[in-house]
Amino acid sequence: METLHIRSHALQSPKSKFMNPLFSKVVTKPLNPFLSTLKPFCTANSSTPLPLKKTTLTRNRVKVREKVADAAQLKQDWLDSLTFPLPDETETTSFGGDDLTRNNVGSDWVMGIDPDVSGALALLKIDESGCSAQVFDSPHLKVMVGKGIRKRLDVKSIVQLIRSLDAPIGTTAYVEQSTPFPQDGKQGWWSGGFGYGLWIGVLVASGFSVVPVPSMKWKNDLELTGGRCTKDDSRRIASTLFPSLSPLLERKKDHGRAEALLIAAHGKGMKLKNSSSVSGELP
Amino acid sequence: METLHIRSHALQSPKSKFMNPLFSKVVTKPLNPFLSTLKPFCTANSSTPLPLKKTTLTRNRVKVREKVADAAQLKQDWLDSLTFPLPDETETTSFGGDDLTRNNVGSDWVMGIDPDVSGALALLKIDESGCSAQVFDSPHLKVMVGKGIRKRLDVKSIVQLIRSLDAPIGTTAYVEQSTPFPQDGKQGWWSGGFGYGLWIGVLVASGFSVVPVPSMKWKNDLELTGGRCTKDDSRRIASTLFPSLSPLLERKKDHGRAEALLIAAHGKGMKLKNSSSVSGELP
Repeated sequence: METLHIRSHALQSPKSKFMNPLFSKVVTKPLNPFLSTLKPFCTANSSTPLPLKKTTLTRNRVKVREKVADAAQLKQDWLDSLTFPLPDETETTSFGGDDLTRNNVGSDWVMGIDPDVSGALALLKIDESGCSAQVFDSPHLKVMVGKGIRKRLDVKSIVQLIRSLDAPIGTTAYVEQSTPFPQDGKQGWWSGGFGYGLWIGVLVASGFSVVPVPSMKWKNDLELTGGRCTKDDSRRIASTLFPSLSPLLERKKDHGRAEALLIAAHGKGMKLKNSSSVSGELP
Repeated sequence: METLHIRSHALQSPKSKFMNPLFSKVVTKPLNPFLSTLKPFCTANSSTPLPLKKTTLTRNRVKVREKVADAAQLKQDWLDSLTFPLPDETETTSFGGDDLTRNNVGSDWVMGIDPDVSGALALLKIDESGCSAQVFDSPHLKVMVGKGIRKRLDVKSIVQLIRSLDAPIGTTAYVEQSTPFPQDGKQGWWSGGFGYGLWIGVLVASGFSVVPVPSMKWKNDLELTGGRCTKDDSRRIASTLFPSLSPLLERKKDHGRAEALLIAAHGKGMKLKNSSSVSGELP
């Protein structure tokens, strides 16, 4: 049994800011500059004091605006954290020669992902000849959890699937935001978080930028209004938007495929004008 | 408003099996071949029937062995799904020329990750001159969840951090298995799943193989026995194993750094012989 002599690095000469072992990132951004010009009201300096009620109202309005601005900034920070870091943003490049041809930020490819374990990935490609669509069931496998067996996403197969698409670097992937139901159990909440995190991690690390889409948002845009919307409706609308894929959407269990296609369609700005016509508004 | 003409692909000529849009992967593997040679006992074919009790016992034993074999197979399938798919396993290579020098499957580098939002990543490098250790706080940011603010992992910064390490392709990353406490709320369970999935997704997509490690396992190996183990103990043991990093482990909030280091040490087969000596058994 060998005794190891361990050299440790208490402080690193950073290659990048991430090499600093004390690196701990908490992002704070300045408030809206407009707000910073508001002067706090001080009764001691005023010769004609305003009524107390109006002062409190003004302060409350300022606080509300600050909170809204803070919330917007936090949301922007979160979205920024889901964008693919281009090779020139880091000192080392993980992608070699061949990938220069893939570097097509802002391409007209779009992915849509239903991150549930029974979900799917849809790919829409816009080129000179039109729009083509593909959909793939999410690879998964069985695992033992406690004494039971559950389905779980197969990350290796997901990585291989994504590579096989040959999508350009920087392609946007619209991922349905994970919002478990309050009535779901804790395992369901854990699984929801796991699938969401896994897809985001794989997509960003593979070269794509993620945009989370609340389910209400894409459903409203495609006239699948919340309470009345069923999984059958999703399959019906997806079959309307992508008629050649309708054979893949015939079974009840194909709702994951339908939702992935609809999320991608939402990302592409496609809308359903009425039950029989489709319009696509390229963003 | 332009009407899109949509070409859809109902069936794809597959580039690889993953191009088949009907692809839906449920992995089943044959049972242990030893078990498959066991012949079912059939009383109709036997001239001297065994007592019923012994028959039932035999059947139960067979069922138990089958269940154990099934469980082992499921576990192996799960571990296989966390291994980095080497470029020759897919038709297209995501890594270009420069990365041939990184392709060093089975290298002596090891990562240890505490996947919590307040966790950390540790990197142990074994080379001719010994073992060097580094530790990095997990990048995170603030997000609004409902009306409150929570911390969440910053995936873009995590991807940049991992790239900056220049670890060889195929390096093993030991990730503490996410096991939320029953008393945690649903948000806690969701966050636990999210962080775990995110780290696994980023690591596998970035070229590394993940091995999940239950917390009890690495704690037992390092003599941090379950119920008596505290976060202060983790910092103390990590400071013993990595004395030059002890300045980074002095605060209570540094327990994430300590745990990442200990998880990496466990992955490297390092053990604590007694409170003052360290032994490293290279696997």
